[in-house]
Amino acid sequence: MPDIEKTKRTTVLRGARRAVFDRDTVYAILDKALVCQVAFIDANGRPAMVPTNHWRVGDKLFIHGSPKGRLCGVAEAGGEVCLNVAIADGLVLGRSAYHHSLNYRSVVAYASPMVVADPKEKMRALEAFIEKLQPGRWADVRPPTETELKITSVVVLDLNECSAKVRGGPPMDEEADYALPVWAGEVPLSLVRGEPVPDPRLDPNCKVPDYLKG
Amino acid sequence: MPDIEKTKRTTVLRGARRAVFDRDTVYAILDKALVCQVAFIDANGRPAMVPTNHWRVGDKLFIHGSPKGRLCGVAEAGGEVCLNVAIADGLVLGRSAYHHSLNYRSVVAYASPMVVADPKEKMRALEAFIEKLQPGRWADVRPPTETELKITSVVVLDLNECSAKVRGGPPMDEEADYALPVWAGEVPLSLVRGEPVPDPRLDPNCKVPDYLKG
Repeated sequence: MPDIEKTKRTTVLRGARRAVFDRDTVYAILDKALVCQVAFIDANGRPAMVPTNHWRVGDKLFIHGSPKGRLCGVAEAGGEVCLNVAIADGLVLGRSAYHHSLNYRSVVAYASPMVVADPKEKMRALEAFIEKLQPGRWADVRPPTETELKITSVVVLDLNECSAKVRGGPPMDEEADYALPVWAGEVPLSLVRGEPVPDPRLDPNCKVPDYLKG
Repeated sequence: MPDIEKTKRTTVLRGARRAVFDRDTVYAILDKALVCQVAFIDANGRPAMVPTNHWRVGDKLFIHGSPKGRLCGVAEAGGEVCLNVAIADGLVLGRSAYHHSLNYRSVVAYASPMVVADPKEKMRALEAFIEKLQPGRWADVRPPTETELKITSVVVLDLNECSAKVRGGPPMDEEADYALPVWAGEVPLSLVRGEPVPDPRLDPNCKVPDYLKG
């Protein structure tokens, strides 16, 4: 896939050597993260933000919410958003306080969100969301009713203006500090899934599906 | 501690029953999260956002960065930010697609950030940052030099206008759906620390410090 075109806004100013415009890398970070933050300018002209779930299909990113929600309002008003996902991959412990850092993968995207009006497209998008949360899940669950579709808004953002920033590896200490008798390195961090906890009202005949095992 | 005073902006509109204004709860979420997002209005009047690390001391939240960074610019210009942290605690798998959700803890704070000018206050704040990343670490590392202090900006936000939103527990399915033969429940998620990875250039005589064990 061709790289994402750089714009003034997506040019990484601080730590430019960590910038990534490769579409595969950017998309892999968006796909890995469950939660994103969406910033917008509120009705009073002040900065505001909503954390939400997102999912990607091709070059489009989707979020969903209430039709009365603020993000829907931004989309309906033709407003712009700035979206970010950030994944913490590790603590970076340098020999000096100054060279402590975090290993991370982060994406910033700018877009004018649009409300998905077509019910079939909405249904396909919601299927993609459930399948992101848990692959294999859509086939098992009761699909949305017409009413549920009506009270769910799906908003789409084109991934035309975005970039990633990635830090990995050991600390980058000052040359003189490598001689200090201080342990230095990385403490990896990862988001881990625990054992599924059944709903207290679960029918005891309902077994844990294969896609939740292991 | 008294609850945080509710303002128009921190009144939770969607899912109001999940709103929390209890200061201990809000602070515990801020303390647990390593990464926050800071939204602001950029020089062209458009929404922008920076992911960064944050730490808390009392009723104040701190972030740091380059004096040339955009957040510092917002602080110097007397601008406002909206800050969010969101922790994903679990996938909520309902019997219907509609009742799939995430268990999470999230805080939104509005503030006018201020640059910390006093070098002593800055040093104390940076100590608190390192101790948040890794308790016990500050005593081990080379402290910041005067030059390092100069090229590090510390920005402080008062936690006067903030609220949390928390979802926990099993799915809340439609009453009729509880009879469906669909497994439902929660898949817990947690950020887990791995085994420390030594810097490839680490002096082999440097042992893993006690605060990194177990």
